[in-house]
Amino acid sequence: MKITLAYGGGGEETNKLIKDLFYENFKNDILIKAEDAAIINIDGKTAFTTDSFTIDPIFFNGGDIGKLSIAGTCNDLAMMGAEPKFLSISFIIEEGLHFNDLKKIVDSISTELKKVNAKIVCGDTKVVPAGSVDKIFINTSGIGKVIKDNISAHNLKIGDKILVSRDIGRHGSVVLAKRFGVDTEINSDCKILWDEVKALIDEGIEIKAMRDATRGGLSAVLNEWAEASNIRIEIEEDKIPISDEVSGLCEIFGFEPMDLANEGTFIVAVESKDAEKTKEILKKFNKNASIIGEVVEGEKVVLKTPYGSKRYIDLPKGELLPRIC
Amino acid sequence: MKITLAYGGGGEETNKLIKDLFYENFKNDILIKAEDAAIINIDGKTAFTTDSFTIDPIFFNGGDIGKLSIAGTCNDLAMMGAEPKFLSISFIIEEGLHFNDLKKIVDSISTELKKVNAKIVCGDTKVVPAGSVDKIFINTSGIGKVIKDNISAHNLKIGDKILVSRDIGRHGSVVLAKRFGVDTEINSDCKILWDEVKALIDEGIEIKAMRDATRGGLSAVLNEWAEASNIRIEIEEDKIPISDEVSGLCEIFGFEPMDLANEGTFIVAVESKDAEKTKEILKKFNKNASIIGEVVEGEKVVLKTPYGSKRYIDLPKGELLPRIC
Repeated sequence: MKITLAYGGGGEETNKLIKDLFYENFKNDILIKAEDAAIINIDGKTAFTTDSFTIDPIFFNGGDIGKLSIAGTCNDLAMMGAEPKFLSISFIIEEGLHFNDLKKIVDSISTELKKVNAKIVCGDTKVVPAGSVDKIFINTSGIGKVIKDNISAHNLKIGDKILVSRDIGRHGSVVLAKRFGVDTEINSDCKILWDEVKALIDEGIEIKAMRDATRGGLSAVLNEWAEASNIRIEIEEDKIPISDEVSGLCEIFGFEPMDLANEGTFIVAVESKDAEKTKEILKKFNKNASIIGEVVEGEKVVLKTPYGSKRYIDLPKGELLPRIC
Repeated sequence: MKITLAYGGGGEETNKLIKDLFYENFKNDILIKAEDAAIINIDGKTAFTTDSFTIDPIFFNGGDIGKLSIAGTCNDLAMMGAEPKFLSISFIIEEGLHFNDLKKIVDSISTELKKVNAKIVCGDTKVVPAGSVDKIFINTSGIGKVIKDNISAHNLKIGDKILVSRDIGRHGSVVLAKRFGVDTEINSDCKILWDEVKALIDEGIEIKAMRDATRGGLSAVLNEWAEASNIRIEIEEDKIPISDEVSGLCEIFGFEPMDLANEGTFIVAVESKDAEKTKEILKKFNKNASIIGEVVEGEKVVLKTPYGSKRYIDLPKGELLPRIC
């Protein structure tokens, strides 16, 4: 069975799709009562974010566009110290998409939602003629309750340490391999990061800056921080965790692992005194968590090789890999 | 100048687009400080909604996809008695879109925002390869403060009156005409409706149900209400305001004006005692506001013709007109 334009017309078929598939899988008290908008109760400092997911392929090792759309938006909230609470979901579906593919995506959204205390409370469905969109795009916006505030790219000070929560470049590598028809065992790191963030907050870590290294990868995050805080970040090459598979693939295609997207990997800056404790907490979630560098006087991002040489790591430029997320 | 994939890569060019075009036009204190998410303060009963806009053509008589994306989302909030406060905006842009077209859309968003006390506080930009999306799709999610609560499709009681805020079918007609290459003077009704709603609330009207008649038009709203409240709605054909141009176009193409989308026209249900006052308030905004029918015992939606005959108005079925909004 395929999705036809009628499912997006706002009439009988649209109602059926929404009730039988979406409500059935995402149901909760707020969603069921939602009309033109959902009515929610929130108080105080709140985080609000949006992300559109256009990834190609829609199914990949370690996830699919559905899982990604929940993890990506929850992570944007988590990175601001906010617990994900309320999500919206908006599907733009190409006429002719197999119903089973949509069902798999919806199942995967539903599975991911169970890992976090967040609900889908409102949504939208559009079906567009074949050729107007490639298979399916999803927008997820999210609202979260800020538990730990004042986390910002502007907070870095000389002496702060920089950590990465796990080995880098997995998500980008998976998409790269699939796009070029290379067989690989690599799984995307796609994952909701709220548990890791909550553990850091609960253990009293004073998080200064935090960012998931999505498009533009580790390079983009570090460059943004260096510019925002007007400092230099020095990174040690041999401290950056990269799996052999990701290294190998990057060599073949001439990519830089630090530029590759991640979808469940984050960078955190803490005061020097908190660095070891932060690493120990992160290691409970992934053994590859590592202190990769520190903040020094100056500007830009510098990579120190094991042989003592140094080079600048620039903000990625050009097209990189389109439709990575 | 055309938008290239580099503008969506998350690197230098993406930053330039965001800073020079989006920040410059939408700027406010919250947006400028937003990192992975915006930090907002909101208390109590809150409305939350999302909408993806995929309209073809992106420029039309009376608006464009930018104006529509602000009006559509603000209206979903307004229809729940909520004042639009915070918006997110997410662009999915096809590689090769002319920069000037994007600029026109951004200008139009900016103009529309000035009509309401709402800010764009967070956003997302994706550029996808040519052929992956048709020109530009926009998602706008919105958060509003509920000023008048308990507005719901479930509230209708026997004797309640049904009003429409202006003549129907304009937006659908404009898209229809443009799609089929018909020259027309009709303008879309595309408009933020918060001023109208606020006037009703300020004048003490007890709004029972309210809905903007978008996809599926007047027919879809009335059918949804009849089902939700388990009542019949009887409408008088000669009370439904329809312009001659819309009537004419519908005759040519065999469309039913009641099924056509609107983007700045709403239906409201009030107690009989409030009906005349509601009409007078709405007439200050559009002279075509009209009491079109009432709630009676039974089920479904019935249209009474001036000749005394009656027929059922069903929920629109089939594909109607794709990419209307």
